[in-house]
Amino acid sequence: MKGLFITFEGGECSGKTTIIEELKSTLENKGYEVLVTREPGGSFIAEQIRKVLLDKENVGMSSECEALLYAASRIEHLKKTILPALEKGTIVISDRYLDSSLVYQGYARDLGVDNVLKLNMYALNYMPDLTIFIDVKPEVALKRLSLRQGKVDRLDSESFSFHQMVYDAYLEIAKMYKERIKVVDGNKSLEEVTKNAINLVLERLQ
Amino acid sequence: MKGLFITFEGGECSGKTTIIEELKSTLENKGYEVLVTREPGGSFIAEQIRKVLLDKENVGMSSECEALLYAASRIEHLKKTILPALEKGTIVISDRYLDSSLVYQGYARDLGVDNVLKLNMYALNYMPDLTIFIDVKPEVALKRLSLRQGKVDRLDSESFSFHQMVYDAYLEIAKMYKERIKVVDGNKSLEEVTKNAINLVLERLQ
Repeated sequence: MKGLFITFEGGECSGKTTIIEELKSTLENKGYEVLVTREPGGSFIAEQIRKVLLDKENVGMSSECEALLYAASRIEHLKKTILPALEKGTIVISDRYLDSSLVYQGYARDLGVDNVLKLNMYALNYMPDLTIFIDVKPEVALKRLSLRQGKVDRLDSESFSFHQMVYDAYLEIAKMYKERIKVVDGNKSLEEVTKNAINLVLERLQ
Repeated sequence: MKGLFITFEGGECSGKTTIIEELKSTLENKGYEVLVTREPGGSFIAEQIRKVLLDKENVGMSSECEALLYAASRIEHLKKTILPALEKGTIVISDRYLDSSLVYQGYARDLGVDNVLKLNMYALNYMPDLTIFIDVKPEVALKRLSLRQGKVDRLDSESFSFHQMVYDAYLEIAKMYKERIKVVDGNKSLEEVTKNAINLVLERLQ
């Protein structure tokens, strides 16, 4: 592949969206082709699966169904959006990817990391070149969440213990894949976090 | 489980829908509680997944995504509809179940029967008590299909060689699970086929 595949991971309110926007501008100003995308979704069919996953009416969905839908969405995203862009030499930045499933379905929903990994890998084994985990402590994330108005989807409504579990799981995954996953302290100001995340990408490009 | 779980399998235009309706009446007249359902779909969330699977706009869907969506739909169908009904002693009749995925995704889409089986079984290993395969030769099915007006969905539009592959795969699966799967000659008149299928169920109930 000629491009570079970067993913961002982190819990709710980690500032991923803003950081990714800034990163995109920075890279474009340096002359790179950049594609920003996100999961679930990111392709025509994957976006339809996203709707099913995030619909608050579907709160009773079984964990197994959830894991299968994320995997289905991811395979479409990879084949239709990510791989074709990488082939053209584009830098692809995805807000969430496989690690999110390992954390949310594997650990937090208790399906087992190995099971979720197998489920995703049976079809296509393709990992990011670089993953940036924005490390925000659960208490900081929840404080930020309570300040956010009127934008609470199904995942936001989970309890504190769930957020804590997700956080611990991310730290585990970051240890498992320490070559690929770089951790950025996300408890600082958004400006500082953004600068540190962008610097990691610029170092990788040199 | 107190109830009985019966599934019907077969290619397009095998008459499954009509046969199932007749079977339902026959069983209800004998005093049984009967629930008729079908895949993909069969529960609140599974029906949303069905829409994504059967939408003609989604014709470019990857085989892997397709297999994952069928498995996701099936797990919801099983947990929310089939198992609760069986628990109450109901006879559950499903138009298609796991065998359809083994045939369509495993053989015809070339993902491998073992892969598709694992994908479906990692979460919940639950097989029908009895499966009736309506055996209609591809040339007979396609003749019937050409007579059917204005009701062609994505799967109906596949070519003859695809129908032939599906047919051969069903025969393979029927051999693999010969204890569970009973084959009914579907090339005869619908009345005769229906009678033979119903008799198989009545024998099983004795």
